Amino acid sequence: MKDLTPTVTTGPLPASRRVWHAGQRHPEIRVPMREIDLHPTAGEPPVTVYDSSGPYTDPEAEIAIDRGLPRLRAGWIAARGDTQTYAGRAINPADNGFAEGTRLVPEFPLRHAPRRATQGRAVTQMAYARAGIVTPEMEFVAIRENLGRKAQAEALARDGESFGAAIPDFITPEFVRDEIAQGRAIIPANINHPEAEPMAIGRNFLVKINANIGNSAVTSSMAEEVEKMVWATRWGADTVMDLSTGRNIHNIRDWIIRNSPVPIGTVPLYQALEKVGGIAEDLTREVFRDTLIEQAEQGVDYFTIHAGVRLHMIPMTVNRVTGIVSRGGSIMAKWCLHHHRESFLYEHFDEICEIARAYDVSFSLGDGLRPGSIADANDAAQFAELETLGELTQIAWAKDCQVMIEGPGHVPMHKIKANMDKQLQVCGEAPFYTLGPLTTDIAPGYDHITSGIGAAMIGWFGTAMLCYVTPKEHLGLPDRDDVKVGVITYKIAAHAADLAKGHPAAQIRDDALSRARFEFRWEDQFNLSLDPETARSMHDETLPKEAHKVAHFCSMCGPKFCSMRISHDIRAEAQKDGMARMAEKFREGGRLYLPVEDKA
Amino acid sequence: MKDLTPTVTTGPLPASRRVWHAGQRHPEIRVPMREIDLHPTAGEPPVTVYDSSGPYTDPEAEIAIDRGLPRLRAGWIAARGDTQTYAGRAINPADNGFAEGTRLVPEFPLRHAPRRATQGRAVTQMAYARAGIVTPEMEFVAIRENLGRKAQAEALARDGESFGAAIPDFITPEFVRDEIAQGRAIIPANINHPEAEPMAIGRNFLVKINANIGNSAVTSSMAEEVEKMVWATRWGADTVMDLSTGRNIHNIRDWIIRNSPVPIGTVPLYQALEKVGGIAEDLTREVFRDTLIEQAEQGVDYFTIHAGVRLHMIPMTVNRVTGIVSRGGSIMAKWCLHHHRESFLYEHFDEICEIARAYDVSFSLGDGLRPGSIADANDAAQFAELETLGELTQIAWAKDCQVMIEGPGHVPMHKIKANMDKQLQVCGEAPFYTLGPLTTDIAPGYDHITSGIGAAMIGWFGTAMLCYVTPKEHLGLPDRDDVKVGVITYKIAAHAADLAKGHPAAQIRDDALSRARFEFRWEDQFNLSLDPETARSMHDETLPKEAHKVAHFCSMCGPKFCSMRISHDIRAEAQKDGMARMAEKFREGGRLYLPVEDKA
Repeated sequence: MKDLTPTVTTGPLPASRRVWHAGQRHPEIRVPMREIDLHPTAGEPPVTVYDSSGPYTDPEAEIAIDRGLPRLRAGWIAARGDTQTYAGRAINPADNGFAEGTRLVPEFPLRHAPRRATQGRAVTQMAYARAGIVTPEMEFVAIRENLGRKAQAEALARDGESFGAAIPDFITPEFVRDEIAQGRAIIPANINHPEAEPMAIGRNFLVKINANIGNSAVTSSMAEEVEKMVWATRWGADTVMDLSTGRNIHNIRDWIIRNSPVPIGTVPLYQALEKVGGIAEDLTREVFRDTLIEQAEQGVDYFTIHAGVRLHMIPMTVNRVTGIVSRGGSIMAKWCLHHHRESFLYEHFDEICEIARAYDVSFSLGDGLRPGSIADANDAAQFAELETLGELTQIAWAKDCQVMIEGPGHVPMHKIKANMDKQLQVCGEAPFYTLGPLTTDIAPGYDHITSGIGAAMIGWFGTAMLCYVTPKEHLGLPDRDDVKVGVITYKIAAHAADLAKGHPAAQIRDDALSRARFEFRWEDQFNLSLDPETARSMHDETLPKEAHKVAHFCSMCGPKFCSMRISHDIRAEAQKDGMARMAEKFREGGRLYLPVEDKA
Repeated sequence: MKDLTPTVTTGPLPASRRVWHAGQRHPEIRVPMREIDLHPTAGEPPVTVYDSSGPYTDPEAEIAIDRGLPRLRAGWIAARGDTQTYAGRAINPADNGFAEGTRLVPEFPLRHAPRRATQGRAVTQMAYARAGIVTPEMEFVAIRENLGRKAQAEALARDGESFGAAIPDFITPEFVRDEIAQGRAIIPANINHPEAEPMAIGRNFLVKINANIGNSAVTSSMAEEVEKMVWATRWGADTVMDLSTGRNIHNIRDWIIRNSPVPIGTVPLYQALEKVGGIAEDLTREVFRDTLIEQAEQGVDYFTIHAGVRLHMIPMTVNRVTGIVSRGGSIMAKWCLHHHRESFLYEHFDEICEIARAYDVSFSLGDGLRPGSIADANDAAQFAELETLGELTQIAWAKDCQVMIEGPGHVPMHKIKANMDKQLQVCGEAPFYTLGPLTTDIAPGYDHITSGIGAAMIGWFGTAMLCYVTPKEHLGLPDRDDVKVGVITYKIAAHAADLAKGHPAAQIRDDALSRARFEFRWEDQFNLSLDPETARSMHDETLPKEAHKVAHFCSMCGPKFCSMRISHDIRAEAQKDGMARMAEKFREGGRLYLPVEDKA
């Protein structure tokens, strides 16, 4: 089968090096960051940025997709002494939708024995945090969030409106521990996904983004999905959700997890539904449970669980313009309606928690009743479910399970903040994880933009992770280009949110890029941008010559009209004359030359 | 010369017809709108949307670029009896940058004698409004803003947060008159551009967008610019600014204006600078005045005037990260610095007003000191200039001149609202017209998105017109594709703002599209979108067959996972059973099936 060993995109981004910062409490940890070198004429140190790309951007790393990434957390997990390996659940044909022969995606070549908690223990980061333990994962995250700052003293002057978020000037491992213990942040880190580099999702950390990938019954293959995962993290995806729904779902997921440097999320209901032939009403607690264990053993880091859809809420959706638009939500609603009872997810959520705590699978409590149109935003169904998600959060926390809460959807701008406020209030400050929201329904083909607007705003208001939307939303499955556009758009939204919240390090990159722009360091401008390739190629469309990259003007205005160039003349003149004296002279001048309104 | 008669894009958008609504006070006026027909199965009337595209989308219209558009306002203007035609200023070689021979763009073939006010009268819409006159332009705008609604009773339930804007349920001609008289709105409508269809820019009307076109010394030709203008209005640009700076500036502008159905704005300083060989300090009051008259006679509808840059403000920019980034601002700053005096624009602004009132050229008071980076947002220089723009507004209003105020720029989200609040406060509620703002500096190549976020927000807060930013911002001159992406992005921002402000008709299109989506009317979904071509082609990438356009699922989820389809089943089941009874049963059920937390 030609797809046996997929090739993926590797190599550093322009002028960039992957560097590592060592831990202090845990000297063995090496926290990756990206340093972007500037032109020598800048006289500035490299700019350090967050790096979600994993070993793929490290030219020294040996990448072998059929072996998977190094299992960097394996030793940390084993050292805790609270887990053991075991044989694991046998893979059966239903796990791959009964795909056979050449239609069956081959198994991942290596099988690692799964690990789980011994004796019903909770092996979650939350359990450790509550016990006062600062895990290597927590220190890793603390270092990562500081973006290379070494101490509080290096923080920028703070400027922002955080709406109650409290991001410290400098993140300590103890701060991370406390946030996890309080449930205000999570580190999605299944003990069976030791390849992932720990990251935090919480209102008091950098805003994160998620990219969705996954095949469907209609299209897409394993090699494409693995490359989409690598590609998405290259451009900045902090987590990836595998939303596959077709055949081969088990094997494709294995290839993705073994090669993923970021946490992987899934919606286990999709696979459970495949196992019962796509008939929602045939779903059972047992099939679902089996699927959770299957995926927990593979290493899925967070599960979307649509346990908030309750029977009495379904009539609330009947007069909606767009009914129920969440796949998981509609499946569960159909089940509830058919059996005329509460869903097994809701009734047996404690059982689901038992599984999650044994592997440290985090919950992403799904918003099955999220609005699918402007007309349906913030309605009774949506908020009723949100309140139930708040109840479920307490149940999960009682079991030391890590929780985040999913949010909408389609919401006009004036109704966005109410979503954040209500979520904080009813879900005990568990991290919010929203899809967009889309601020209008009228632009299919541009829903990365309709939703990027809403994402930036809700990120500012306090959402911890933004689920990307690609240009293909509502129209088709995203290809590699769509994934990139979606990721870059959401990096913009997340960064705009960090700036507005007043994150102490967010503006460093803006300032470095703007200085490069003002000083006509074109290469630095490209290299510091979120997408150096696109910036460079757009510049070169009009002024392709290498000489133009040192030109003190660009194609928009040409040399005569270049405001930046004139600004330099002004600055030079001002400095020649002495700034203070000049200002004084101008103030006199202002009185000598009588302005129009003084004459009137 | 091959460019003699450019061809432009014509023909209706899919399923769309251009329709006209007649005036009541002025029965001769015909206000264009676009009606989008829906599939018969919808059982819904056509959706009426605002139409800025002019006759180009009307298959009945005879388009001849070398004759120009019909001069629809000619009779209205003449009938007022306060203007006269005259010989006009002679065109001289400097007007076209001394281009000669084959390098000279030919003159527009028809020369219409220019018209100006008799005996120093003010022939502005503001003067008429203050005199209590409801002009045909005002009634045209009233009908246009209502989007085909015939009476207040047809208004939707209002829902929004308008931050003090007061959009009535139904716009009357008298309301328009009052808004113009108060200076809260403008109708940019030079008496020498009778081809344009009147439109309003004001906080209590639909949010408008502007598209910039124009050649530079480096690139671009006349035919391209005319097509860019037609293309931009096809996708929704409400006004177009011609920012040309190269040779042939006069002749290209003539071709653009004679064929433009929307108001045309310029920055006369650019041409004035060409006339003095590009040396800022050689600019004079006389050259500038001559340029204003030249452009007023051609029919430019609004002038950006950078009269707010004052001598004492220049030192305030010296320590900025990006100095002065407005071309006009930097030119005037250089002039002030060189001559060490206040600019002739500021000192003789009353003289500029005399010209503007004789032709009804509106002012767009330029923000020459707008911030060019996040670091420089909302600084002393920016706000000092804004206060001066407030002074100038009063001077212009005293002469019955129409005014709008330009705004930034680069502004992080938490500093956006302060811009709007301060503008309203110091500029007497004159309409605000902003460029973006860009909410981060780190994404060249995607600045339509970084700025679309800010534009949607500031539009919501009260900005009347949003100046688009294309993906090429900071990198190169936009081509036709960039213009379209910029326009669509800004239509999204403007529409998201209308929704959030609670415009009484804004949600009609969202609801129609969402109903189409829910009912799998794919064609309607495409046709109702801002860019039907792109929506259709993205859908067809995955599911190209015609049969799939009636399919009750799409490529994202496939048939089994289609939430919309399941929602229909749910709705059917609910209706079968009787909604109220069902809800009652569910409430009982909710008590029978004991949920998890009740057991605890």
